Amino acid sequence: MRKLFNRELGRKSVEQFRNLVKSPFVIVLDNVRSMSNTGSVFRSADAFLAESIYLCGITGVPPHPEIRKTALGATESVSWKYFKKTAEAITGLISEGYRIIGIEQAEGAISLNDFIPEKNIKYAFVFGHEVNGVDQEIIDMCDHVIEIPQSGTKHSLNIAVSAGIVMWEMYKSLSREI
Amino acid sequence: MRKLFNRELGRKSVEQFRNLVKSPFVIVLDNVRSMSNTGSVFRSADAFLAESIYLCGITGVPPHPEIRKTALGATESVSWKYFKKTAEAITGLISEGYRIIGIEQAEGAISLNDFIPEKNIKYAFVFGHEVNGVDQEIIDMCDHVIEIPQSGTKHSLNIAVSAGIVMWEMYKSLSREI
Repeated sequence: MRKLFNRELGRKSVEQFRNLVKSPFVIVLDNVRSMSNTGSVFRSADAFLAESIYLCGITGVPPHPEIRKTALGATESVSWKYFKKTAEAITGLISEGYRIIGIEQAEGAISLNDFIPEKNIKYAFVFGHEVNGVDQEIIDMCDHVIEIPQSGTKHSLNIAVSAGIVMWEMYKSLSREI
Repeated sequence: MRKLFNRELGRKSVEQFRNLVKSPFVIVLDNVRSMSNTGSVFRSADAFLAESIYLCGITGVPPHPEIRKTALGATESVSWKYFKKTAEAITGLISEGYRIIGIEQAEGAISLNDFIPEKNIKYAFVFGHEVNGVDQEIIDMCDHVIEIPQSGTKHSLNIAVSAGIVMWEMYKSLSREI
Protein backbone atom coordinates (compact mmCIF):
# COMPACT_ATOMS: atom_id res chain seq x y z
CA MET A 1 0.00 0.00 0.00
CA ARG A 2 1.79 3.07 -1.27
CA LYS A 3 1.62 6.13 0.96
CA LEU A 4 0.05 9.11 -0.74
CA PHE A 5 1.92 12.31 -1.50
CA ASN A 6 0.51 15.56 -0.12
CA ARG A 7 -0.54 16.58 -3.63
CA GLU A 8 -2.77 13.49 -3.82
CA LEU A 9 -4.78 14.30 -0.67
CA GLY A 10 -7.28 16.69 -2.26
CA ARG A 11 -6.38 19.42 0.21
CA LYS A 12 -8.39 22.60 -0.13
CA SER A 13 -6.85 26.04 -0.47
CA VAL A 14 -7.76 28.54 2.25
CA GLU A 15 -10.11 30.26 -0.24
CA GLN A 16 -11.78 26.96 -1.22
CA PHE A 17 -12.12 26.11 2.49
CA ARG A 18 -13.89 29.40 3.26
CA ASN A 19 -16.47 28.60 0.58
CA LEU A 20 -17.12 25.02 1.78
CA VAL A 21 -20.38 24.21 3.55
CA LYS A 22 -19.33 23.69 7.15
CA SER A 23 -20.51 21.19 9.74
CA PRO A 24 -23.22 22.87 11.86
CA PHE A 25 -21.20 23.34 15.00
CA VAL A 26 -19.05 25.86 16.81
CA ILE A 27 -16.32 25.00 19.32
CA VAL A 28 -16.15 27.15 22.45
CA LEU A 29 -12.92 27.10 24.47
CA ASP A 30 -13.66 28.23 28.03
CA ASN A 31 -10.36 29.38 29.54
CA VAL A 32 -8.09 26.80 27.91
CA ARG A 33 -4.60 27.41 29.24
CA SER A 34 -2.35 25.61 26.76
CA MET A 35 -1.65 27.26 23.42
CA SER A 36 -0.64 23.90 21.97
CA ASN A 37 -4.07 22.52 22.86
CA THR A 38 -5.72 25.52 21.19
CA GLY A 39 -3.56 25.07 18.07
CA SER A 40 -4.44 21.39 17.91
CA VAL A 41 -8.17 22.23 18.19
CA PHE A 42 -7.75 24.56 15.19
CA ARG A 43 -6.20 21.71 13.19
CA SER A 44 -9.04 19.29 14.01
CA ALA A 45 -11.60 22.05 13.31
CA ASP A 46 -10.05 22.45 9.84
CA ALA A 47 -10.18 18.67 9.25
CA PHE A 48 -13.77 18.26 10.45
CA LEU A 49 -15.15 21.54 9.06
CA ALA A 50 -16.18 23.37 12.23
CA GLU A 51 -18.02 26.62 11.54
CA SER A 52 -15.92 28.58 13.97
CA ILE A 53 -13.93 28.50 17.21
CA TYR A 54 -14.84 30.87 20.03
CA LEU A 55 -11.78 31.60 22.15
CA CYS A 56 -12.78 32.82 25.62
CA GLY A 57 -11.10 34.27 28.69
CA ILE A 58 -7.47 33.19 29.12
CA THR A 59 -7.56 31.08 25.94
CA GLY A 60 -4.76 32.28 23.63
CA VAL A 61 -5.53 33.82 20.24
CA PRO A 62 -3.66 33.75 16.94
CA PRO A 63 -1.19 34.84 15.82
CA HIS A 64 1.02 33.19 18.44
CA PRO A 65 4.07 30.95 17.84
CA GLU A 66 2.83 28.35 20.37
CA ILE A 67 -0.54 28.08 18.62
CA ARG A 68 1.08 28.04 15.16
CA LYS A 69 3.30 25.07 16.16
CA THR A 70 0.29 22.75 16.50
CA ALA A 71 -2.25 24.52 14.26
CA LEU A 72 0.13 24.33 11.28
CA GLY A 73 -1.75 26.95 9.28
CA ALA A 74 -5.30 26.04 10.35
CA THR A 75 -5.63 29.47 12.02
CA GLU A 76 -5.71 30.86 8.46
CA SER A 77 -8.58 28.63 7.33
CA VAL A 78 -10.83 28.24 10.40
CA SER A 79 -12.78 31.32 11.46
CA TRP A 80 -12.56 32.37 15.10
CA LYS A 81 -13.69 35.06 17.54
CA TYR A 82 -12.42 36.16 20.94
CA PHE A 83 -14.67 36.85 23.95
CA LYS A 84 -13.39 38.16 27.27
CA LYS A 85 -16.19 36.33 29.09
CA THR A 86 -17.31 32.84 28.07
CA ALA A 87 -20.86 33.69 29.25
CA GLU A 88 -21.00 36.46 26.64
CA ALA A 89 -20.07 33.99 23.87
CA ILE A 90 -22.74 31.56 25.08
CA THR A 91 -25.42 34.26 25.33
CA GLY A 92 -24.72 35.23 21.72
CA LEU A 93 -24.88 31.60 20.56
CA ILE A 94 -28.19 31.05 22.40
CA SER A 95 -29.68 34.12 20.69
CA GLU A 96 -28.54 32.70 17.33
CA GLY A 97 -30.39 29.44 18.07
CA TYR A 98 -27.44 27.18 18.87
CA ARG A 99 -27.95 24.25 21.19
CA ILE A 100 -25.31 24.55 23.90
CA ILE A 101 -23.52 21.36 24.95
CA GLY A 102 -20.91 21.28 27.69
CA ILE A 103 -18.36 18.48 27.51
CA GLU A 104 -17.94 17.52 31.14
CA GLN A 105 -18.49 14.95 33.82
CA ALA A 106 -21.66 16.14 35.54
CA GLU A 107 -24.90 14.85 37.04
CA GLY A 108 -27.34 13.96 34.29
CA ALA A 109 -24.65 13.98 31.58
CA ILE A 110 -25.45 12.06 28.37
CA SER A 111 -22.84 9.55 27.21
CA LEU A 112 -21.27 10.47 23.87
CA ASN A 113 -22.25 6.90 22.87
CA ASP A 114 -25.90 7.92 23.09
CA PHE A 115 -25.64 11.32 21.42
CA ILE A 116 -27.25 11.47 18.00
CA PRO A 117 -27.05 14.96 16.47
CA GLU A 118 -30.44 16.20 15.26
CA LYS A 119 -30.85 17.45 11.73
CA ASN A 120 -31.26 21.20 11.26
CA ILE A 121 -29.87 21.93 14.72
CA LYS A 122 -26.72 23.96 15.19
CA TYR A 123 -24.56 22.93 18.13
CA ALA A 124 -22.02 24.71 20.27
CA PHE A 125 -19.65 22.37 22.13
CA VAL A 126 -17.96 23.89 25.16
CA PHE A 127 -14.59 22.58 26.37
CA GLY A 128 -12.97 23.84 29.54
CA HIS A 129 -9.74 24.51 31.36
CA GLU A 130 -7.19 21.66 31.55
CA VAL A 131 -7.56 21.23 35.32
CA ASN A 132 -10.85 22.87 36.27
CA GLY A 133 -12.92 21.88 33.22
CA VAL A 134 -15.89 23.96 32.11
CA ASP A 135 -16.92 26.53 34.72
CA GLN A 136 -20.09 25.61 36.68
CA GLU A 137 -21.60 28.99 35.71
CA ILE A 138 -21.21 27.99 32.04
CA ILE A 139 -22.53 24.46 32.66
CA ASP A 140 -25.63 26.12 34.12
CA MET A 141 -26.17 27.86 30.74
CA CYS A 142 -25.93 24.58 28.77
CA ASP A 143 -28.88 22.69 27.29
CA HIS A 144 -27.10 19.38 27.87
CA VAL A 145 -23.84 18.00 29.16
CA ILE A 146 -22.13 15.23 27.22
CA GLU A 147 -19.55 12.97 28.83
CA ILE A 148 -16.99 10.94 26.90
CA PRO A 149 -17.22 7.60 28.74
CA GLN A 150 -13.88 6.21 29.83
CA SER A 151 -12.31 3.69 32.16
CA GLY A 152 -8.89 3.82 33.75
CA THR A 153 -7.19 5.75 36.50
CA LYS A 154 -7.57 9.32 35.26
CA HIS A 155 -11.04 9.91 33.75
CA SER A 156 -9.60 12.98 32.11
CA LEU A 157 -8.63 13.17 28.46
CA ASN A 158 -6.46 15.89 27.02
CA ILE A 159 -8.77 18.71 25.88
CA ALA A 160 -7.47 18.62 22.28
CA VAL A 161 -8.18 14.87 22.21
CA SER A 162 -11.70 15.35 23.66
CA ALA A 163 -12.45 18.07 21.11
CA GLY A 164 -11.06 15.87 18.31
CA ILE A 165 -13.33 12.98 19.33
CA VAL A 166 -16.48 15.14 19.56
CA MET A 167 -15.74 16.84 16.20
CA TRP A 168 -15.06 13.41 14.63
CA GLU A 169 -18.46 12.15 15.87
CA MET A 170 -20.19 15.22 14.36
CA TYR A 171 -18.30 14.97 11.06
CA LYS A 172 -19.01 11.23 10.83
CA SER A 173 -22.73 11.56 11.49
CA LEU A 174 -22.99 14.28 8.86
CA SER A 175 -21.09 12.33 6.23
CA ARG A 176 -23.54 9.45 6.80
CA GLU A 177 -26.42 11.75 5.83
CA ILE A 178 -24.92 12.60 2.42
CA MET B 1 -26.28 19.99 36.14
CA ARG B 2 -23.77 19.78 38.95
CA LYS B 3 -20.18 18.99 37.93
CA LEU B 4 -18.86 15.85 39.55
CA PHE B 5 -16.00 15.82 42.01
CA ASN B 6 -12.98 13.63 41.19
CA ARG B 7 -14.00 11.24 43.98
CA GLU B 8 -17.31 10.61 42.18
CA LEU B 9 -15.74 9.52 38.88
CA GLY B 10 -15.11 5.89 39.81
CA ARG B 11 -11.44 6.21 38.96
CA LYS B 12 -9.42 3.03 39.32
CA SER B 13 -6.23 2.74 41.34
CA VAL B 14 -3.12 1.70 39.39
CA GLU B 15 -3.41 -1.78 40.92
CA GLN B 16 -7.11 -2.08 39.99
CA PHE B 17 -6.25 -0.86 36.48
CA ARG B 18 -3.58 -3.56 36.03
CA ASN B 19 -6.18 -6.22 36.86
CA LEU B 20 -8.85 -4.87 34.48
CA VAL B 21 -9.63 -6.74 31.27
CA LYS B 22 -8.14 -4.53 28.56
CA SER B 23 -9.41 -3.66 25.10
CA PRO B 24 -7.74 -6.05 22.62
CA PHE B 25 -5.37 -3.57 21.04
CA VAL B 26 -1.82 -2.30 21.26
CA ILE B 27 -0.70 1.17 20.15
CA VAL B 28 2.62 1.32 18.25
CA LEU B 29 4.36 4.71 18.01
CA ASP B 30 6.74 4.66 15.03
CA ASN B 31 9.30 7.43 15.63
CA VAL B 32 6.97 9.97 17.23
CA ARG B 33 9.04 13.08 17.88
CA SER B 34 7.00 15.02 20.43
CA MET B 35 7.07 13.88 24.05
CA SER B 36 3.83 15.76 24.70
CA ASN B 37 2.13 13.71 21.98
CA THR B 38 3.48 10.51 23.54
CA GLY B 39 2.25 11.60 26.99
CA SER B 40 -1.18 12.39 25.61
CA VAL B 41 -1.35 8.94 23.95
CA PHE B 42 -0.62 7.38 27.38
CA ARG B 43 -3.51 9.32 28.87
CA SER B 44 -5.97 8.20 26.16
CA ALA B 45 -4.64 4.63 26.42
CA ASP B 46 -5.46 4.71 30.15
CA ALA B 47 -8.97 6.06 29.44
CA PHE B 48 -9.74 3.55 26.69
CA LEU B 49 -7.97 0.54 28.24
CA ALA B 50 -5.25 -0.16 25.66
CA GLU B 51 -3.30 -3.34 26.39
CA SER B 52 0.04 -1.68 25.90
CA ILE B 53 1.98 1.05 24.06
CA TYR B 54 5.05 0.09 22.02
CA LEU B 55 7.44 3.03 21.84
CA CYS B 56 9.77 2.71 18.85
CA GLY B 57 12.85 4.44 17.47
CA ILE B 58 13.13 8.11 18.44
CA THR B 59 9.85 7.98 20.43
CA GLY B 60 10.58 9.12 23.99
CA VAL B 61 10.15 6.78 26.95
CA PRO B 62 9.08 7.42 30.55
CA PRO B 63 10.18 8.69 32.93
CA HIS B 64 10.56 12.07 31.25
CA PRO B 65 9.22 15.44 32.45
CA GLU B 66 7.82 16.29 28.98
CA ILE B 67 5.88 13.01 28.84
CA ARG B 68 4.72 13.39 32.44
CA LYS B 69 3.26 16.84 31.71
CA THR B 70 0.63 15.40 29.36
CA ALA B 71 0.42 11.79 30.63
CA LEU B 72 -0.45 12.98 34.16
CA GLY B 73 0.36 9.64 35.75
CA ALA B 74 -0.89 7.35 32.98
CA THR B 75 2.68 6.08 32.47
CA GLU B 76 2.22 4.33 35.83
CA SER B 77 -0.96 2.51 34.81
CA VAL B 78 -0.50 1.71 31.09
CA SER B 79 2.07 -0.96 30.26
CA TRP B 80 4.70 -0.09 27.62
CA LYS B 81 7.76 -1.50 25.88
CA TYR B 82 10.58 0.13 23.95
CA PHE B 83 11.93 -1.16 20.61
CA LYS B 84 14.91 0.36 18.81
CA LYS B 85 13.40 -0.65 15.46
CA THR B 86 9.69 -0.41 14.75
CA ALA B 87 10.00 -3.43 12.41
CA GLU B 88 11.12 -5.54 15.36
CA ALA B 89 8.02 -4.53 17.35
CA ILE B 90 5.77 -5.38 14.38
CA THR B 91 7.45 -8.75 13.78
CA GLY B 92 6.82 -9.66 17.42
CA LEU B 93 3.17 -8.58 17.22
CA ILE B 94 2.65 -10.60 14.00
CA SER B 95 4.07 -13.70 15.68
CA GLU B 96 1.65 -13.14 18.59
CA GLY B 97 -1.27 -13.09 16.15
CA TYR B 98 -2.04 -9.36 16.14
CA ARG B 99 -3.62 -7.82 13.06
CA ILE B 100 -1.41 -4.86 12.08
CA ILE B 101 -3.17 -1.66 11.05
CA GLY B 102 -1.27 1.42 9.90
CA ILE B 103 -3.05 4.75 10.37
CA GLU B 104 -2.09 6.62 7.23
CA GLN B 105 -3.22 8.07 3.95
CA ALA B 106 -2.28 5.38 1.44
CA GLU B 107 -3.58 3.66 -1.66
CA GLY B 108 -6.25 1.12 -0.75
CA ALA B 109 -6.72 2.58 2.74
CA ILE B 110 -10.02 1.75 4.49
CA SER B 111 -11.97 4.70 5.88
CA LEU B 112 -12.30 4.63 9.68
CA ASN B 113 -16.04 5.03 8.98
CA ASP B 114 -16.05 1.56 7.46
CA PHE B 115 -13.86 -0.20 10.02
CA ILE B 116 -15.73 -2.68 12.21
CA PRO B 117 -13.40 -4.49 14.62
CA GLU B 118 -13.82 -8.25 14.47
CA LYS B 119 -14.48 -10.21 17.61
CA ASN B 120 -11.60 -12.33 18.95
CA ILE B 121 -9.04 -10.41 16.89
CA LYS B 122 -6.25 -8.49 18.57
CA TYR B 123 -5.22 -5.30 16.78
CA ALA B 124 -2.03 -3.26 16.67
CA PHE B 125 -2.54 0.33 15.47
CA VAL B 126 0.59 2.02 14.17
CA PHE B 127 0.94 5.82 14.30
CA GLY B 128 3.87 7.63 12.74
CA HIS B 129 6.14 10.63 12.88
CA GLU B 130 4.50 14.08 13.04
CA VAL B 131 5.76 15.09 9.57
CA ASN B 132 6.67 11.87 7.78
CA GLY B 133 3.90 9.61 9.08
CA VAL B 134 4.37 5.85 9.31
CA ASP B 135 7.46 4.67 7.42
CA GLN B 136 6.70 2.97 4.07
CA GLU B 137 8.72 -0.07 5.23
CA ILE B 138 6.31 -0.41 8.17
CA ILE B 139 3.23 0.18 5.98
CA ASP B 140 4.48 -2.74 3.86
CA MET B 141 4.28 -4.96 6.97
CA CYS B 142 0.66 -3.94 7.74
CA ASP B 143 -2.41 -6.09 7.05
CA HIS B 144 -4.49 -2.95 6.39
CA VAL B 145 -4.20 0.79 6.36
CA ILE B 146 -6.97 2.87 7.93
CA GLU B 147 -7.45 6.52 7.07
CA ILE B 148 -9.36 8.99 9.21
CA PRO B 149 -11.42 10.79 6.56
CA GLN B 150 -11.20 14.55 6.74
CA SER B 151 -11.86 17.69 4.75
CA GLY B 152 -10.10 21.01 4.99
CA THR B 153 -6.76 22.46 4.04
CA LYS B 154 -4.39 20.20 5.99
CA HIS B 155 -5.51 16.55 5.86
CA SER B 156 -3.27 15.95 8.83
CA LEU B 157 -4.51 15.58 12.38
CA ASN B 158 -2.25 15.82 15.40
CA ILE B 159 -1.01 12.29 16.17
CA ALA B 160 -2.36 12.34 19.75
CA VAL B 161 -5.77 13.33 18.35
CA SER B 162 -5.66 10.58 15.67
CA ALA B 163 -4.70 7.99 18.29
CA GLY B 164 -7.47 9.27 20.60
CA ILE B 165 -10.08 8.91 17.84
CA VAL B 166 -8.99 5.37 16.89
CA MET B 167 -8.87 4.25 20.54
CA TRP B 168 -12.30 5.82 21.13
CA GLU B 169 -13.73 3.86 18.17
CA MET B 170 -12.29 0.61 19.57
CA TYR B 171 -13.50 1.32 23.11
CA LYS B 172 -16.95 2.27 21.85
CA SER B 173 -17.40 -0.83 19.72
CA LEU B 174 -16.33 -3.02 22.63
CA SER B 175 -18.66 -1.35 25.10
CA ARG B 176 -21.53 -2.04 22.67
CA GLU B 177 -20.78 -5.77 22.91
CA ILE B 178 -21.15 -5.89 26.68
